[in-house]
Amino acid sequence: MDDKPEIDAEPLKVDDIYVGQKFQSGTHIIDASQIKAFAREFDPQPFHLDENSAKSSLFGGLVASGWQTAAISMKLLVKSIPFPGGIIGAKAELSWPNPTRPGDTLHVEGEVLSVSPSRSNADRLVVTVRNVTKNQKGQDVQILVSKLVVPKC
Amino acid sequence: MDDKPEIDAEPLKVDDIYVGQKFQSGTHIIDASQIKAFAREFDPQPFHLDENSAKSSLFGGLVASGWQTAAISMKLLVKSIPFPGGIIGAKAELSWPNPTRPGDTLHVEGEVLSVSPSRSNADRLVVTVRNVTKNQKGQDVQILVSKLVVPKC
Repeated sequence: MDDKPEIDAEPLKVDDIYVGQKFQSGTHIIDASQIKAFAREFDPQPFHLDENSAKSSLFGGLVASGWQTAAISMKLLVKSIPFPGGIIGAKAELSWPNPTRPGDTLHVEGEVLSVSPSRSNADRLVVTVRNVTKNQKGQDVQILVSKLVVPKC
Repeated sequence: MDDKPEIDAEPLKVDDIYVGQKFQSGTHIIDASQIKAFAREFDPQPFHLDENSAKSSLFGGLVASGWQTAAISMKLLVKSIPFPGGIIGAKAELSWPNPTRPGDTLHVEGEVLSVSPSRSNADRLVVTVRNVTKNQKGQDVQILVSKLVVPKC
Protein backbone atom coordinates (compact mmCIF):
# COMPACT_ATOMS: atom_id res chain seq x y z
CA MET A 1 0.00 0.00 0.00
CA ASP A 2 3.02 2.28 0.28
CA ASP A 3 4.84 3.46 -2.77
CA LYS A 4 8.12 3.69 -0.94
CA PRO A 5 9.37 1.70 2.01
CA GLU A 6 8.91 3.35 5.35
CA ILE A 7 12.05 4.04 7.28
CA ASP A 8 11.75 4.37 11.01
CA ALA A 9 13.04 7.70 12.21
CA GLU A 10 15.79 7.64 14.87
CA PRO A 11 14.26 7.65 18.37
CA LEU A 12 14.19 11.08 20.03
CA LYS A 13 14.91 11.83 23.67
CA VAL A 14 12.69 14.24 25.57
CA ASP A 15 15.34 16.96 25.46
CA ASP A 16 15.50 16.65 21.68
CA ILE A 17 11.93 17.95 21.27
CA TYR A 18 11.64 21.69 20.55
CA VAL A 19 9.09 24.22 19.34
CA GLY A 20 9.32 24.63 15.58
CA GLN A 21 10.70 21.10 15.08
CA LYS A 22 9.46 19.64 11.81
CA PHE A 23 8.72 16.12 10.66
CA GLN A 24 7.92 14.71 7.24
CA SER A 25 6.31 11.31 6.81
CA GLY A 26 6.54 8.68 4.12
CA THR A 27 3.62 8.28 1.72
CA HIS A 28 0.50 6.17 1.41
CA ILE A 29 -1.43 5.62 -1.82
CA ILE A 30 -5.14 5.06 -1.25
CA ASP A 31 -7.36 3.32 -3.79
CA ALA A 32 -11.09 2.69 -4.14
CA SER A 33 -10.89 -0.79 -2.62
CA GLN A 34 -9.25 0.54 0.57
CA ILE A 35 -11.88 3.31 0.76
CA LYS A 36 -14.77 0.86 0.41
CA ALA A 37 -13.29 -1.71 2.82
CA PHE A 38 -12.83 0.87 5.58
CA ALA A 39 -16.31 2.26 4.92
CA ARG A 40 -17.96 -1.15 5.13
CA GLU A 41 -16.43 -1.64 8.57
CA PHE A 42 -16.66 1.84 10.06
CA ASP A 43 -18.48 4.41 7.93
CA PRO A 44 -21.04 2.76 5.64
CA GLN A 45 -22.35 5.83 3.84
CA PRO A 46 -23.08 5.85 0.07
CA PHE A 47 -20.35 8.39 -0.82
CA HIS A 48 -17.72 6.09 0.74
CA LEU A 49 -19.11 2.82 -0.65
CA ASP A 50 -20.24 3.23 -4.23
CA GLU A 51 -19.03 5.39 -7.13
CA ASN A 52 -22.47 5.87 -8.63
CA SER A 53 -24.17 6.92 -5.41
CA ALA A 54 -21.20 9.18 -4.66
CA LYS A 55 -21.63 11.08 -7.94
CA SER A 56 -24.89 12.62 -6.76
CA SER A 57 -23.53 13.44 -3.27
CA LEU A 58 -22.03 16.81 -2.40
CA PHE A 59 -18.58 15.26 -3.01
CA GLY A 60 -19.35 14.48 -6.68
CA GLY A 61 -17.50 11.16 -6.45
CA LEU A 62 -16.15 8.48 -4.15
CA VAL A 63 -14.29 9.86 -1.12
CA ALA A 64 -12.64 8.29 1.90
CA SER A 65 -14.13 8.53 5.38
CA GLY A 66 -12.45 11.33 7.29
CA TRP A 67 -11.67 8.72 9.93
CA GLN A 68 -9.76 6.72 7.33
CA THR A 69 -7.72 9.81 6.45
CA ALA A 70 -7.08 10.19 10.20
CA ALA A 71 -6.09 6.51 10.58
CA ILE A 72 -3.73 6.59 7.57
CA SER A 73 -2.22 9.82 8.87
CA MET A 74 -1.58 8.09 12.20
CA LYS A 75 0.14 5.21 10.41
CA LEU A 76 2.42 7.70 8.67
CA LEU A 77 3.05 9.64 11.90
CA VAL A 78 3.96 6.60 13.98
CA LYS A 79 6.91 6.02 11.66
CA SER A 80 8.02 9.62 11.38
CA ILE A 81 7.58 11.21 14.83
CA PRO A 82 9.84 9.13 17.09
CA PHE A 83 8.81 10.50 20.49
CA PRO A 84 9.91 8.50 23.53
CA GLY A 85 7.04 6.32 24.71
CA GLY A 86 5.29 6.59 21.35
CA ILE A 87 2.57 8.90 20.11
CA ILE A 88 -0.11 9.10 22.75
CA GLY A 89 -2.86 11.58 22.03
CA ALA A 90 -4.95 13.10 24.80
CA LYS A 91 -6.84 15.61 22.67
CA ALA A 92 -7.10 16.50 19.01
CA GLU A 93 -8.64 19.12 16.77
CA LEU A 94 -9.34 17.93 13.26
CA SER A 95 -10.54 19.45 10.04
CA TRP A 96 -10.87 18.01 6.56
CA PRO A 97 -10.56 20.94 4.12
CA ASN A 98 -10.59 18.63 1.07
CA PRO A 99 -11.73 15.02 0.71
CA THR A 100 -9.35 12.12 0.13
CA ARG A 101 -10.13 10.49 -3.22
CA PRO A 102 -9.13 7.19 -4.86
CA GLY A 103 -5.60 7.35 -6.26
CA ASP A 104 -4.44 10.05 -3.83
CA THR A 105 -0.90 9.83 -2.50
CA LEU A 106 -0.93 11.13 1.04
CA HIS A 107 1.89 12.32 3.27
CA VAL A 108 2.00 14.25 6.54
CA GLU A 109 3.99 17.34 7.45
CA GLY A 110 4.30 17.89 11.19
CA GLU A 111 5.49 20.77 13.36
CA VAL A 112 5.85 21.04 17.13
CA LEU A 113 3.80 24.04 18.33
CA SER A 114 4.47 23.84 22.07
CA VAL A 115 6.22 21.80 24.73
CA SER A 116 5.03 22.11 28.34
CA PRO A 117 5.10 20.17 31.59
CA SER A 118 1.97 18.11 32.24
CA ARG A 119 -0.25 19.74 34.89
CA SER A 120 -1.40 16.39 36.20
CA ASN A 121 1.83 14.38 36.14
CA ALA A 122 5.36 15.70 36.76
CA ASP A 123 6.86 12.76 34.86
CA ARG A 124 5.23 13.79 31.60
CA LEU A 125 5.35 16.54 29.01
CA VAL A 126 2.47 17.72 26.87
CA VAL A 127 3.63 18.36 23.32
CA THR A 128 1.30 20.04 20.84
CA VAL A 129 1.91 19.05 17.24
CA ARG A 130 0.24 20.36 14.08
CA ASN A 131 0.11 17.65 11.43
CA VAL A 132 -1.11 18.48 7.96
CA THR A 133 -1.96 15.58 5.66
CA LYS A 134 -1.52 16.56 2.02
CA ASN A 135 -2.35 14.90 -1.27
CA GLN A 136 -0.15 14.74 -4.36
CA LYS A 137 -1.49 18.13 -5.51
CA GLY A 138 -0.35 19.77 -2.29
CA GLN A 139 -3.94 20.19 -1.09
CA ASP A 140 -4.60 19.80 2.63
CA VAL A 141 -6.91 16.83 3.22
CA GLN A 142 -6.58 16.93 7.00
CA ILE A 143 -5.29 19.38 9.57
CA LEU A 144 -4.75 17.75 12.95
CA VAL A 145 -3.58 19.60 16.03
CA SER A 146 -2.85 17.05 18.75
CA LYS A 147 -1.88 17.30 22.38
CA LEU A 148 0.47 14.39 22.94
CA VAL A 149 1.51 12.93 26.28
CA VAL A 150 5.26 12.28 26.35
CA PRO A 151 6.78 10.40 29.33
CA LYS A 152 10.02 12.02 30.51
CA CYS A 153 11.73 8.71 31.05
CA MET B 1 -18.94 -7.81 16.63
CA ASP B 2 -22.18 -6.30 17.87
CA ASP B 3 -24.01 -7.74 20.80
CA LYS B 4 -27.35 -6.57 19.55
CA PRO B 5 -28.53 -5.97 16.02
CA GLU B 6 -28.34 -2.40 14.86
CA ILE B 7 -31.61 -0.83 13.87
CA ASP B 8 -31.48 2.05 11.46
CA ALA B 9 -33.11 5.13 12.90
CA GLU B 10 -35.93 6.72 10.89
CA PRO B 11 -34.55 9.34 8.46
CA LEU B 12 -34.84 12.92 9.70
CA LYS B 13 -35.74 15.97 7.64
CA VAL B 14 -33.79 19.20 8.09
CA ASP B 15 -36.67 20.81 9.99
CA ASP B 16 -36.67 17.89 12.43
CA ILE B 17 -33.20 18.81 13.77
CA TYR B 18 -33.22 20.95 16.94
CA VAL B 19 -30.86 22.08 19.67
CA GLY B 20 -30.98 19.68 22.61
CA GLN B 21 -32.03 16.74 20.42
CA LYS B 22 -30.56 13.52 21.72
CA PHE B 23 -29.47 10.29 20.08
CA GLN B 24 -28.45 6.96 21.51
CA SER B 25 -26.54 4.40 19.47
CA GLY B 26 -26.43 0.64 19.49
CA THR B 27 -23.42 -1.09 21.01
CA HIS B 28 -20.12 -2.53 19.85
CA ILE B 29 -18.05 -5.03 21.81
CA ILE B 30 -14.33 -4.72 21.13
CA ASP B 31 -11.88 -7.55 21.76
CA ALA B 32 -8.09 -7.91 21.70
CA SER B 33 -8.04 -9.30 18.17
CA GLN B 34 -9.90 -6.26 16.80
CA ILE B 35 -7.54 -3.95 18.70
CA LYS B 36 -4.43 -5.65 17.31
CA ALA B 37 -5.78 -5.88 13.75
CA PHE B 38 -6.55 -2.16 13.62
CA ALA B 39 -3.18 -1.35 15.19
CA ARG B 40 -1.25 -3.45 12.68
CA GLU B 41 -2.85 -1.50 9.85
CA PHE B 42 -2.98 2.02 11.27
CA ASP B 43 -1.30 2.47 14.67
CA PRO B 44 1.47 -0.09 15.20
CA GLN B 45 2.57 0.89 18.70
CA PRO B 46 3.41 -1.70 21.39
CA PHE B 47 0.53 -0.77 23.73
CA HIS B 48 -1.96 -1.52 20.89
CA LEU B 49 -0.24 -4.67 19.61
CA ASP B 50 0.98 -6.82 22.47
CA GLU B 51 -0.31 -7.46 26.00
CA ASN B 52 3.15 -7.89 27.52
CA SER B 53 4.61 -4.72 26.06
CA ALA B 54 1.43 -2.88 27.00
CA LYS B 55 1.83 -3.84 30.68
CA SER B 56 4.89 -1.63 31.04
CA SER B 57 3.35 1.29 29.13
CA LEU B 58 1.53 4.14 30.85
CA PHE B 59 -1.74 2.34 30.06
CA GLY B 60 -0.78 -0.74 32.12
CA GLY B 61 -2.35 -3.07 29.55
CA LEU B 62 -3.55 -3.43 25.98
CA VAL B 63 -5.63 -0.47 24.76
CA ALA B 64 -7.25 0.43 21.46
CA SER B 65 -5.90 3.17 19.24
CA GLY B 66 -7.89 6.36 19.80
CA TRP B 67 -8.53 6.32 16.05
CA GLN B 68 -10.18 2.93 16.41
CA THR B 69 -12.44 4.30 19.15
CA ALA B 70 -13.23 7.14 16.74
CA ALA B 71 -13.93 4.78 13.85
CA ILE B 72 -16.17 2.49 15.93
CA SER B 73 -18.00 5.54 17.25
CA MET B 74 -18.61 6.62 13.66
CA LYS B 75 -20.00 3.20 12.82
CA LEU B 76 -22.42 3.52 15.73
CA LEU B 77 -23.34 7.10 14.80
CA VAL B 78 -24.07 6.38 11.14
CA LYS B 79 -26.88 4.08 12.27
CA SER B 80 -28.26 6.32 14.98
CA ILE B 81 -28.09 9.90 13.69
CA PRO B 82 -30.24 9.86 10.56
CA PHE B 83 -29.45 13.30 9.15
CA PRO B 84 -30.48 13.98 5.56
CA GLY B 85 -27.48 13.50 3.27
CA GLY B 86 -25.64 11.46 5.91
CA ILE B 87 -23.09 12.44 8.51
CA ILE B 88 -20.52 14.67 6.88
CA GLY B 89 -17.96 16.14 9.24
CA ALA B 90 -16.11 19.34 8.43
CA LYS B 91 -14.37 19.75 11.78
CA ALA B 92 -14.06 17.81 15.00
CA GLU B 93 -12.67 18.19 18.49
CA LEU B 94 -11.75 14.93 20.15
CA SER B 95 -10.56 13.83 23.53
CA TRP B 96 -10.00 10.39 24.98
CA PRO B 97 -10.46 10.69 28.77
CA ASN B 98 -10.13 6.91 29.29
CA PRO B 99 -8.68 4.23 27.03
CA THR B 100 -10.78 1.58 25.29
CA ARG B 101 -9.76 -1.87 26.54
CA PRO B 102 -10.41 -5.43 25.32
CA GLY B 103 -13.90 -6.61 26.28
CA ASP B 104 -15.35 -3.12 26.47
CA THR B 105 -18.91 -2.61 25.24
CA LEU B 106 -19.12 0.81 23.67
CA HIS B 107 -22.10 2.98 22.83
CA VAL B 108 -22.49 6.63 21.89
CA GLU B 109 -24.77 9.27 23.36
CA GLY B 110 -25.25 12.29 21.10
CA GLU B 111 -26.76 15.74 21.57
CA VAL B 112 -27.27 18.57 19.09
CA LEU B 113 -25.53 21.70 20.43
CA SER B 114 -26.31 24.15 17.63
CA VAL B 115 -27.98 24.46 14.24
CA SER B 116 -26.93 27.33 11.97
CA PRO B 117 -26.94 28.26 8.30
CA SER B 118 -23.66 27.54 6.50
CA ARG B 119 -21.67 30.73 5.88
CA SER B 120 -20.29 29.42 2.61
CA ASN B 121 -23.35 27.70 1.13
CA ALA B 122 -26.99 28.78 1.48
CA ASP B 123 -28.18 25.25 0.69
CA ARG B 124 -26.54 23.77 3.78
CA LEU B 125 -26.80 23.85 7.54
CA VAL B 126 -23.95 23.41 9.99
CA VAL B 127 -25.05 21.25 12.91
CA THR B 128 -22.77 20.89 15.93
CA VAL B 129 -23.18 17.59 17.74
CA ARG B 130 -21.51 16.40 20.96
CA ASN B 131 -21.08 12.65 20.91
CA VAL B 132 -19.81 10.88 23.99
CA THR B 133 -18.63 7.29 23.59
CA LYS B 134 -19.02 5.35 26.84
CA ASN B 135 -17.94 1.94 28.00
CA GLN B 136 -20.00 -0.55 30.00
CA LYS B 137 -18.92 1.13 33.27
CA GLY B 138 -20.31 4.47 32.11
CA GLN B 139 -16.81 5.91 31.69
CA ASP B 140 -16.25 8.33 28.81
CA VAL B 141 -13.72 6.86 26.37
CA GLN B 142 -14.19 9.58 23.77
CA ILE B 143 -15.77 13.01 23.64
CA LEU B 144 -16.30 14.20 20.10
CA VAL B 145 -17.71 17.59 19.18
CA SER B 146 -18.32 17.65 15.43
CA LYS B 147 -19.44 20.30 13.03
CA LEU B 148 -21.55 18.46 10.47
CA VAL B 149 -22.59 19.72 7.05
CA VAL B 150 -26.26 18.99 6.41
CA PRO B 151 -27.70 19.65 2.93
CA LYS B 152 -31.11 21.36 3.13
CA CYS B 153 -32.58 19.28 0.34
